[in-house]
Amino acid sequence: MEKIALGAHPYLYPLPTVIVGTRTEDKPNFITVSFVGIVQQHSPPMISVTLHNNHHTSKGIRDTKAFSINIPNTRLLAKTDYVGMTSGLTVDKSEVFEFFEGHITGCPIIRETPLNLECRLIKEIELGGESVLFIGEIVESYSARKYLKRGIPYVPKLRPILFSINTNSYYRVGRKLGKAWHEGLRIKEKVRKLS
Amino acid sequence: MEKIALGAHPYLYPLPTVIVGTRTEDKPNFITVSFVGIVQQHSPPMISVTLHNNHHTSKGIRDTKAFSINIPNTRLLAKTDYVGMTSGLTVDKSEVFEFFEGHITGCPIIRETPLNLECRLIKEIELGGESVLFIGEIVESYSARKYLKRGIPYVPKLRPILFSINTNSYYRVGRKLGKAWHEGLRIKEKVRKLS
Repeated sequence: MEKIALGAHPYLYPLPTVIVGTRTEDKPNFITVSFVGIVQQHSPPMISVTLHNNHHTSKGIRDTKAFSINIPNTRLLAKTDYVGMTSGLTVDKSEVFEFFEGHITGCPIIRETPLNLECRLIKEIELGGESVLFIGEIVESYSARKYLKRGIPYVPKLRPILFSINTNSYYRVGRKLGKAWHEGLRIKEKVRKLS
Repeated sequence: MEKIALGAHPYLYPLPTVIVGTRTEDKPNFITVSFVGIVQQHSPPMISVTLHNNHHTSKGIRDTKAFSINIPNTRLLAKTDYVGMTSGLTVDKSEVFEFFEGHITGCPIIRETPLNLECRLIKEIELGGESVLFIGEIVESYSARKYLKRGIPYVPKLRPILFSINTNSYYRVGRKLGKAWHEGLRIKEKVRKLS
């Protein structure tokens, strides 16, 4: 297989699609992002999200030290795309979604999305360019019974939205491929016998 | 819809599945992770990856200031799972994959995976627990012609692997749902008419 150098690009496929909620100048605001990831599993769990330094949402996160990460499903595709294409600076997005409050007063959490993470700002990291990386402690997660299996969010019921960078396309999650810490057992056994 | 609080969990669904490559004590080593994300789009593009502080790979990244992010496809599921279930401390994983070198001498980049990002360590951030967040500048990306469409990696050809945390399952990417900055246009138009 002939490898080709494509240049310095952020080609990670696919990315999640989430809606960040915060309160900016005392008004709830929502924005869609894909530059989001878990950065610590526990003690405590933490998530990171990258935003433009001067985004309306960045101001809200700095002022309130809180934000929500809301995971939309395929039914919410149009609304999800909409809040990603408009800025809270020029458009009032406070009525696009119904929202509720959790532990942190004032932090809007979206009711319609099947899953939510309520986060407290822990760190803000400048990356040198126009981006800023916010790291939040996940203080609570919310869902509804119909999206769970044995108490844990279940992907085929959540039906989250994937994002493909540079081709700017959304995808569904497909079929289950296998179990982690299981599919590799055959190789592990083979290696053990050889050594 | 009745929301339930599920506790403080890192419930982001789904996550990507990638293999981090580095050279530790002068031997190539590979480990599978899902705590990975783009943290800056350009000028320069950057990626973050979380590892255990004392992982064999963490030592390699600190020593060499470099790592590769290799995006496996569904055909590589067993090998991908295998390098995630064993530690380079006790098992030699240097021969699981064929690899090549890019711009950074010594940094192993996997030949079999359809897509690769070659990264130079920029920052290491302690998160307070057992995890450490490495931020790398993406200095080059590599693929092969058969995985591209108009010169950009194309998800249906890449066939990447998704990971579902806590249920510990792997999933495929499914069908295309729509275009970003397009699906929300109808709502944008409606809002404009109302205002």
